[in-house]
Amino acid sequence: MSTRADTVPQKPVLLTGASGALGRVLTRALGEQGWTLRLTDRVPFPDQLPEGARFQLADLEDGPAILRLAEGCGTILHFGGISVEHPFETVIGPNIRGLYHAYEAARREGARMVFASSNHAIGFHERTEVLDDDCALAPDGYYGLSKAYGEMMGGLYRHKHGVESVFLRIGSCFPEPTDARMLATWLSYGDMTRLVMRATLAPTLGPSGTAVIWGASKNSRMTWWRRDGRETIGWAPQDSADSYAAALEGKTSGNPVAERYQGGGFTALDYSRSEPPR
Amino acid sequence: MSTRADTVPQKPVLLTGASGALGRVLTRALGEQGWTLRLTDRVPFPDQLPEGARFQLADLEDGPAILRLAEGCGTILHFGGISVEHPFETVIGPNIRGLYHAYEAARREGARMVFASSNHAIGFHERTEVLDDDCALAPDGYYGLSKAYGEMMGGLYRHKHGVESVFLRIGSCFPEPTDARMLATWLSYGDMTRLVMRATLAPTLGPSGTAVIWGASKNSRMTWWRRDGRETIGWAPQDSADSYAAALEGKTSGNPVAERYQGGGFTALDYSRSEPPR
Amino acid sequence: MSTRADTVPQKPVLLTGASGALGRVLTRALGEQGWTLRLTDRVPFPDQLPEGARFQLADLEDGPAILRLAEGCGTILHFGGISVEHPFETVIGPNIRGLYHAYEAARREGARMVFASSNHAIGFHERTEVLDDDCALAPDGYYGLSKAYGEMMGGLYRHKHGVESVFLRIGSCFPEPTDARMLATWLSYGDMTRLVMRATLAPTLGPSGTAVIWGASKNSRMTWWRRDGRETIGWAPQDSADSYAAALEGKTSGNPVAERYQGGGFTALDYSRSEPPR
Amino acid sequence: MSTRADTVPQKPVLLTGASGALGRVLTRALGEQGWTLRLTDRVPFPDQLPEGARFQLADLEDGPAILRLAEGCGTILHFGGISVEHPFETVIGPNIRGLYHAYEAARREGARMVFASSNHAIGFHERTEVLDDDCALAPDGYYGLSKAYGEMMGGLYRHKHGVESVFLRIGSCFPEPTDARMLATWLSYGDMTRLVMRATLAPTLGPSGTAVIWGASKNSRMTWWRRDGRETIGWAPQDSADSYAAALEGKTSGNPVAERYQGGGFTALDYSRSEPPR
Amino acid sequence: MSTRADTVPQKPVLLTGASGALGRVLTRALGEQGWTLRLTDRVPFPDQLPEGARFQLADLEDGPAILRLAEGCGTILHFGGISVEHPFETVIGPNIRGLYHAYEAARREGARMVFASSNHAIGFHERTEVLDDDCALAPDGYYGLSKAYGEMMGGLYRHKHGVESVFLRIGSCFPEPTDARMLATWLSYGDMTRLVMRATLAPTLGPSGTAVIWGASKNSRMTWWRRDGRETIGWAPQDSADSYAAALEGKTSGNPVAERYQGGGFTALDYSRSEPPR
Amino acid sequence: MSTRADTVPQKPVLLTGASGALGRVLTRALGEQGWTLRLTDRVPFPDQLPEGARFQLADLEDGPAILRLAEGCGTILHFGGISVEHPFETVIGPNIRGLYHAYEAARREGARMVFASSNHAIGFHERTEVLDDDCALAPDGYYGLSKAYGEMMGGLYRHKHGVESVFLRIGSCFPEPTDARMLATWLSYGDMTRLVMRATLAPTLGPSGTAVIWGASKNSRMTWWRRDGRETIGWAPQDSADSYAAALEGKTSGNPVAERYQGGGFTALDYSRSEPPR
Repeated sequence: MSTRADTVPQKPVLLTGASGALGRVLTRALGEQGWTLRLTDRVPFPDQLPEGARFQLADLEDGPAILRLAEGCGTILHFGGISVEHPFETVIGPNIRGLYHAYEAARREGARMVFASSNHAIGFHERTEVLDDDCALAPDGYYGLSKAYGEMMGGLYRHKHGVESVFLRIGSCFPEPTDARMLATWLSYGDMTRLVMRATLAPTLGPSGTAVIWGASKNSRMTWWRRDGRETIGWAPQDSADSYAAALEGKTSGNPVAERYQGGGFTALDYSRSEPPR
Repeated sequence: MSTRADTVPQKPVLLTGASGALGRVLTRALGEQGWTLRLTDRVPFPDQLPEGARFQLADLEDGPAILRLAEGCGTILHFGGISVEHPFETVIGPNIRGLYHAYEAARREGARMVFASSNHAIGFHERTEVLDDDCALAPDGYYGLSKAYGEMMGGLYRHKHGVESVFLRIGSCFPEPTDARMLATWLSYGDMTRLVMRATLAPTLGPSGTAVIWGASKNSRMTWWRRDGRETIGWAPQDSADSYAAALEGKTSGNPVAERYQGGGFTALDYSRSEPPR
Repeated sequence: MSTRADTVPQKPVLLTGASGALGRVLTRALGEQGWTLRLTDRVPFPDQLPEGARFQLADLEDGPAILRLAEGCGTILHFGGISVEHPFETVIGPNIRGLYHAYEAARREGARMVFASSNHAIGFHERTEVLDDDCALAPDGYYGLSKAYGEMMGGLYRHKHGVESVFLRIGSCFPEPTDARMLATWLSYGDMTRLVMRATLAPTLGPSGTAVIWGASKNSRMTWWRRDGRETIGWAPQDSADSYAAALEGKTSGNPVAERYQGGGFTALDYSRSEPPR
Repeated sequence: MSTRADTVPQKPVLLTGASGALGRVLTRALGEQGWTLRLTDRVPFPDQLPEGARFQLADLEDGPAILRLAEGCGTILHFGGISVEHPFETVIGPNIRGLYHAYEAARREGARMVFASSNHAIGFHERTEVLDDDCALAPDGYYGLSKAYGEMMGGLYRHKHGVESVFLRIGSCFPEPTDARMLATWLSYGDMTRLVMRATLAPTLGPSGTAVIWGASKNSRMTWWRRDGRETIGWAPQDSADSYAAALEGKTSGNPVAERYQGGGFTALDYSRSEPPR
Repeated sequence: MSTRADTVPQKPVLLTGASGALGRVLTRALGEQGWTLRLTDRVPFPDQLPEGARFQLADLEDGPAILRLAEGCGTILHFGGISVEHPFETVIGPNIRGLYHAYEAARREGARMVFASSNHAIGFHERTEVLDDDCALAPDGYYGLSKAYGEMMGGLYRHKHGVESVFLRIGSCFPEPTDARMLATWLSYGDMTRLVMRATLAPTLGPSGTAVIWGASKNSRMTWWRRDGRETIGWAPQDSADSYAAALEGKTSGNPVAERYQGGGFTALDYSRSEPPR
Repeated sequence: MSTRADTVPQKPVLLTGASGALGRVLTRALGEQGWTLRLTDRVPFPDQLPEGARFQLADLEDGPAILRLAEGCGTILHFGGISVEHPFETVIGPNIRGLYHAYEAARREGARMVFASSNHAIGFHERTEVLDDDCALAPDGYYGLSKAYGEMMGGLYRHKHGVESVFLRIGSCFPEPTDARMLATWLSYGDMTRLVMRATLAPTLGPSGTAVIWGASKNSRMTWWRRDGRETIGWAPQDSADSYAAALEGKTSGNPVAERYQGGGFTALDYSRSEPPR
């Protein structure tokens, strides 16, 4: 990985989920930086392709197709798959099997994985807890479980095959924050883009070969997340949700479960536990 | 769970994987204790059924069938699925989807899950490390990953639905130890049976509602595993591999990876990392 | 079922096929009545959700998801699945497997099933026959066969598990009648809605535990259908197709098979019998 | 069908499920009669093939293969599929989809279907009821439901495509009766063979084009089954279970559900209805 | 086949892929000729149906449905399936399995197959080669491979079952040519329509029973394709791309692989061979 | 490929279908030569593994597993899949999809493919024809079609990706010949083994990069097969069926189709063509 350049990766970069919201933001931004992009999704790419980008329809569940798309790539930005809570059977194909295909591709190529994990992989930690990057995984649904599975698979592929991974535990990545929780968890498109760039370009992830990054902007209300790998990759958020505070701070869910846990509303979906936790 | 009796559970107990090696041992032993057993497997049960036991062919991938088998049960002993390393595609159906079905059943019934997890869920810890039950998961293959996934799913079902789980991180459960590593990891059939009984009968798992148990007999060479939930459930191993030491202690694998990590030979399967770890 | 209230069911009601034509009509009408609705479909719900309604995407072929959606429900309005004639392979998944999931859910919940059956379950009776609710099933295609299968499954679940079922043998449920046959078979949206309400709210279905209802409005040309369970549930149609008679009575199909049998055009699809029937 | 000969059908006969118990009995017996047999099963045929017989491995779920096997055949003896109670998901493939393939084949060939239905298609009638062939279908499980589905599909294919069907509602077809219920329901191998021969050779099934036959030997304890199509096809049983009465009449199940209903033990499997029926 | 009439086939014609671009052109044109058309596709037909045409939704992977649609047809125009290069897994279902279903239908009906093959079945011949209809198959991707497979299956069905086939190796069939290569390979809609008509109506395909036709209009730049079966079926192209030459002749791909081989751009997709061919 | 050694390949060799008859012969023979073998099959390997051999259970339909098994291999001996005529649906998975996985593996590794093709890929040539290696493919069933598909895929992978292939058109490879046709087509185990060795070890396949070999021993009655690539790879058969001639020459099939065509009995299976060919 010593050959990673300062602003443009030496090898092509594969982006899965290219036709999704974050995929389109990344395609535009990375294309403007002059990156050589291989894009894929199971639905057509809706925008103009940047120069140097190629798009190929493929299903994440089609292993040989994903392995083939990754050939020659030095980094896989794995943003494909289901991105909100859904029944188990809807999640398993794209997010469990699809993830395996992405990691097999990374192993074959000796590529680094930049994996769009989620705060929902640790959503059942309470908001009063302060988490470092070695906190226990505590998924808050089938979606979160698929992300936690992905981080563990990343560990396996590191131990056994030397594959590097950056796990982006993305908070809430939208054009702007829209409720009180996002005053803490919001990740601006700009910060997200720079995070992906640094995760890709960082010459090393240190001796462990993996890095967890808490994916939130410089929000003063984000008090739950502390130590992570941002210095290793050279990233710091620049944007902040603070200016939205006046408009949004009263906009809470009213659900005591959702307000108690870091995962917010996802933790309250189908919540059926009667006795108080702990 | 306050109604769990001393030696015989008040409600029937579902045992998956009943036709496998450990399933057959459990069926015989628990049947002799007078337990009411519901047995299932995807292949016929090869032995005489104990009194009070019912067997039903079912595939772990058939969700409604598993949910139905569990009706009225107070405990699920989930021993079904693939039990050694295999390609991902072989593991995902019985061990990931099948596990989900078992947990859905536990949730529906308010049943306790006793899950046959494995040391391979943490196999990439080195043998020089001493692990407590809150150590990081570190699976050593697709099989181990499915076990780690199961423990996380257990956490999710505890947080969201109040389902209790005992995770048995079984070492090496065979009639007798057969190599040097098993001098540490061996779990005798008797200790395994008593462990399952205590996991089922323990009136409470404490405030966390989950317990991890290191599944090894009282082997003096087992120096890697320390604190766990055995006191909570009231179990202590009685057997020991020590008497096999003279015969087996030279019987090591000769593979430096296998000898370095707790997971033994599984960690060395397909191992392709070139640089030294850490 | 003694706790069924007069106008609002005491327990939530699950409606499958909520995004379809009849599903949307029911959602609006029952929502206005203040019912607590759980809605599901495999495509998003296109309208504003009424207060007290929750929508969850799910595939009828995903058994555990359907079972979970039904938890706590006292009635299942099963309007999902394929609703016109299609090749067998298109019908079997949503209408045979999906039906099984709906009935498993009803059994698990002790819920009553209100099943959108169809005149096509008995479509091969001739129009000159007068049918009571114990007439033989005589499906007129793969779709009708799936509905007849559903009624038999309802009988099985009643016998074996005590599940109550109302089988709505719906004639032609559209905003208004559009051909001569519908002068007999038309069921207005209003009558359909009231029928579903009574099927849900009726305190008992009598000793048999099942009721068949001929689903037609008060059309004077409907001379084929006679005795059914409408008194048991307390429903009578209020609307009539009669005012459309002048405009539509000449609008027949011109196909002798279609005109001979109660199922109309469905009976003539792919009809290949050469000799005259009977 | 006017060309059906007295003892040997003019066209080849397709037998599905040839490698099963009844299939092997039929193969031997019909082969000895000089019939031209096409045999199929998903497992190899274990016996010596009679002269004039051809065997082809095929899965009932493979439609084009089944359609092809039936080419040129004048009769399909459909004995394939699951033959005892199993979870729904195990039954649907071979017994629902497989049945459709068999009926499509019959339609394409203008062949007569001789369908191994079962008493379990009507198993929830009580033993005190006397049934004629037009009694309501009352399946006693998923297996029985698949048989009832088959009879309804036979009706559909008769109405729409002119396909003739003989529905053999087989009681208990074993080498000899083994419990008290079989004193009523036993069908000897000889009677079964002669029944299949007559069902195949009968020149006509009368104007309805379908015939139901109660498949029991001349057992004096069979008091539940009365009128059927045996005269139409020219069959009468010759054997009797009566000589086993002394040995077996005390051998009842002891289960009140099983003893109440015609379907016997199948009706009691998973029986969960609390209140008394009727 | 001696009964094929001059302008209207005596038996109905099945057209698969009816809702696609070429399918719609054919439906309109053949409908205007008074042909009796059976149309099918997996998506609804978007246009007004011509008189005498019937449309049925069906999936090419549903064998019995395709076999049934073809009943009574004398010709199958197989234009369904994937029509451009895609990953193998996307192609195999519609184009390999679907093709088998189409050929099984042709065999059952004794129908002639008119198969929309493609120049991509021979795309890896160089443009300097002059090909006759007995040239070696040389597919240029998974799509082309499925077309070559189809031609071989046609040969098999001819040898074994006497099925006649016309293989249309279509060049580029679009409203008008849009690049330099199409100055050679363009097939006008009119020429394509007349080709399909002649392929259907030709009384005989000669002793071999199969005919390959190079599907290009009368373009003076088409110098690669020579002898074929056009005289046998009585077709000659009438249109020409020549008038587009001035506008398009500089519009080449710039890719040396694409320019070298007859298959054009398809040959260059994923091209990874390093050394020079031959 | 310049590094292929004289007797032992420099890189490991992957053998699919290792547990089959030919696979076991090859494993033993190549193991004795000191080759480094990777073996795979979907059923366990029944024999003692030679030194230097590794066996891994895997399904040919599991693409990533096959790709992974091939890593580091310089040659793939593709002997897996269905090896006799079966219905299409039985063949497509292992032989079409499985083949694709084998070729993808070869492409990824830059490995040479040694493909167990078959005389059934050209079985519909008459025995009076003399074939060179550039003869037209003429498969004689679904099995033969899968072999012809494989040869075409080999051509595609050569053209597009530079993959070398040796196509072994195996005649009849059994311990000894057992009928008259095998006096021509028999390939002894010894000749087969030497053929595979030469196909693997040959330093080059010449400029075309592919070679077809007629897989028959030095039988004087083999008069149909002439020119092929044996000189290029340096193979000549040493054994002969001639000594069996006296015992077998009268042992013909008696079927005129089977006797006419090179494919023998396979060409006569389901043969339904009425008019005489040609």
